[in-house]
Amino acid sequence: MRLYVLGGGQLALMMCWESQRIPVHFSVYDPDPSAPAYRCAKRPSDPLEEVDKADAVTFEFENVDISLAERAEKLGKLRPPLAYLKVKKSRIEERALMDSIGVPTVPWRRAANWEEAIKIAESMGRAYVKVPTGGYDGKGQYIYPHEAALIRGLAGELLVEEYVDIRREFSIVAARAENGDVYFYPPAENFYVHGILVWNYAPTKVPEEVYEHVHRILEWGKYVGVIAVEFFEARDGRVLVNEIAPRVHNTGHWTLETDASQFENHVRAVLGLPLRRPRAMAPTAMVNILGVGLGRLPLAELERLGRVYWYYKAEARPRRKMGHLNITAGSVEEAAARAREALRLIYGADFPKLVMRSRPSP
Amino acid sequence: MRLYVLGGGQLALMMCWESQRIPVHFSVYDPDPSAPAYRCAKRPSDPLEEVDKADAVTFEFENVDISLAERAEKLGKLRPPLAYLKVKKSRIEERALMDSIGVPTVPWRRAANWEEAIKIAESMGRAYVKVPTGGYDGKGQYIYPHEAALIRGLAGELLVEEYVDIRREFSIVAARAENGDVYFYPPAENFYVHGILVWNYAPTKVPEEVYEHVHRILEWGKYVGVIAVEFFEARDGRVLVNEIAPRVHNTGHWTLETDASQFENHVRAVLGLPLRRPRAMAPTAMVNILGVGLGRLPLAELERLGRVYWYYKAEARPRRKMGHLNITAGSVEEAAARAREALRLIYGADFPKLVMRSRPSP
Repeated sequence: MRLYVLGGGQLALMMCWESQRIPVHFSVYDPDPSAPAYRCAKRPSDPLEEVDKADAVTFEFENVDISLAERAEKLGKLRPPLAYLKVKKSRIEERALMDSIGVPTVPWRRAANWEEAIKIAESMGRAYVKVPTGGYDGKGQYIYPHEAALIRGLAGELLVEEYVDIRREFSIVAARAENGDVYFYPPAENFYVHGILVWNYAPTKVPEEVYEHVHRILEWGKYVGVIAVEFFEARDGRVLVNEIAPRVHNTGHWTLETDASQFENHVRAVLGLPLRRPRAMAPTAMVNILGVGLGRLPLAELERLGRVYWYYKAEARPRRKMGHLNITAGSVEEAAARAREALRLIYGADFPKLVMRSRPSP
Repeated sequence: MRLYVLGGGQLALMMCWESQRIPVHFSVYDPDPSAPAYRCAKRPSDPLEEVDKADAVTFEFENVDISLAERAEKLGKLRPPLAYLKVKKSRIEERALMDSIGVPTVPWRRAANWEEAIKIAESMGRAYVKVPTGGYDGKGQYIYPHEAALIRGLAGELLVEEYVDIRREFSIVAARAENGDVYFYPPAENFYVHGILVWNYAPTKVPEEVYEHVHRILEWGKYVGVIAVEFFEARDGRVLVNEIAPRVHNTGHWTLETDASQFENHVRAVLGLPLRRPRAMAPTAMVNILGVGLGRLPLAELERLGRVYWYYKAEARPRRKMGHLNITAGSVEEAAARAREALRLIYGADFPKLVMRSRPSP
C-alpha cells in the first residue's frame, strides 16, 4: 500500500509514526526539505508522479498544492474528497455550507468590502471581521470596534460575525470510513490564547445535538478520514459550529493515548481499512509546547507528568507548535491539574492565569 | 539524549518506534546493513566511538558484540548490567545462578561430555540434553531417548535436564528502574511449536510466588530495563523458571496495546526516565507471523482482527519472525478465539491443532 500525504508538518509526522507498524509506503509532499514529516516519511522524486503511484492521497492542512489534490481527486484517490478542501478555501463558503445543511453557526453576513464590513459590524454592535482566506491560528480575524483600525483597508470580500458571548469551546473529532461507518472520539474542551490552542482535555459532556451536526457535515460530501468540528457553547445555551477541519487536528492529539488514535484511524480510513474503535480510555489532557526549543524543554519533568511528543522542527519561533504533552489520569480534574503543572513547567508561573481564559474578549 | 542499541533486529526496531515521540538520538549496532532497525534508527559511523558518545547502551539480544558491551559497562553506560549478559552466555551458568539465588528450575546436571550426558539422561529416564551456548528458539536441545542419535558426538560440556511433564508455559515481563522501582506486566500464557513461540495471551493467573522469583533475579545484579522470565508449570504443580531473557521479549509484544509497552519502559529505564505504569489494559492475544512474506500476508483481514506489526525483514525464511498481530478483546476467551482465526488466516486450516500443543513431548 502506498499513501501520499500533502503537507509535511507535525500532523503528517504523527500519521507516519502511527503507520510504521504496517507495511505502508508513506510519502509526503512538502517543498521544505526540513519539514518534520521527512524524519519518518519518504520524499518522492516527482511530486506529481507520486499521485499516480499512490493508492490513496490525503492532506494534513487545507492550503495544499491544489494541482496535486485535483489530480488525486480525478484519479479517485483523494480522501477526504476535494469538496471539503474547496469549502475550506473560504470562511464564507464554509459558513454558507453550514447554513445549507442546517448546521448552526455564529450569525454571519457577507460583506463586499471593508466599508460594508464595518457598517454590518456596527449594526451588530460587537463583531468579528474575518478575512475569508488564508487565516488560521487566530490570524486574519479582527474584533470590532476594538480593532476597527486594522479592518480599514482590508482587501476584497469579508466575513462579519456577530459577537457571541462564549461559555466554552469544544470539539468533536470523528472518523468516517468509505463504507459509511462513523466513529466519534469523546468531545474535548479546548483552551485558546489569542486564537492558538494551548491545552485541552477529554472527555467533556456536550449536548447530544452536536453529533447530528457532525453527521450532516460528514454525509454532505461522503467524507472519508478524520475530521474535527469546533464548537462554541454560548452563554445563552446555543451550540454553534465555529469551523471544521477536514483532517487530523490539534484538539485530537490526546487520542494518541487511546489504542486507536485519530492518526491511525485517518490512515486506516483513507487506505480503505476498517476503523478501530478505541477500548478503555483514560481522562486525558493535552498541553501544546509553543515556541520552546529543546534546550529549554524540561523533558524529564514533563515525562513524569505524561508523554511528550516532539515534532523536531528546525527552529523554535514564538507561537510555533514545537511539540505537545499528553497526560492520562484517573479523572479529568486530575488531568487538568497536571496540565496546569505542565504549563508552569513549560512557560513559567504566570501562564496558567492566561490560558484559563478561553478567548480574548472584544 | 543518546541511546545506542546493540543489535538491529525487530526488538530494536520496536524500541525505536516507541522512542520516536521523544527527542532521543537512537542508534543501532548491527553488521547487517539490511537489519530491520535501520528503517528507524541511525547507523553510527564508528561503532566503538558511539559507545563513548551515548548516554546509555543497551542490547536487544544476548549474542551481542561483547567488546562493545564491555566498553559500555566500563563507562557505566550498559543497562541492563553486563553480569546478566555473561550469565546468558551459558545455559549452565544460568541454571547455576538460579540455584544460587533460590529460584527453582527444572532439575538439572552438568555433563562434561556427550557420553556422560547420555549416562545422566539414562538415569533420569526421559531428559533434555542441551548445548550450553548459542541455542535459541528451540535450537541446540535434544530429547533423550528420542533424539539420542543427535546427542552422540556433541562437543564439550552439556546441560542435562529432567523431563518434566508440563501443564503450561507462561512468562512475566517486568521492568526495573535505576531507583529500584519495579513494574510487572500481567503474566502471559505462551504456546510454542518446536521451541518457537507461535502465540500467547495475557493476562493469565499464575501462583503468587513467581513475582518473588522475578524479584530475586532483578535484585541479584541490580537490573535496569525490561526482563522476561519464562516459567513452566508442571502437571505436579511445581512452578519452574525455564529461562530468563535480559531484554524486551517476544512474549511481551502484546504490551504494545497498553499505554506503556515493554519497549517504551525499557527505553525509559535505560535512559533514567521514570517507568510508566500502564492504565486500563484489555485482554490481548499476540500471534507471531513466521516465515510468511508480504505477498502472502492477508493484511486487510488481519487488520480486522487486530493490529499487525511488520518487521520489514529483507527475506521470508521458514520459522523467521516476520511480524506479529496483537488482538485486544473483551475477554481472553474472545482474544484467543480471534487468535485462532488469525492462525488460520496466516497458516491455513491445519495449523491451530498444531499450535495448541504447547511443547513437543519426548
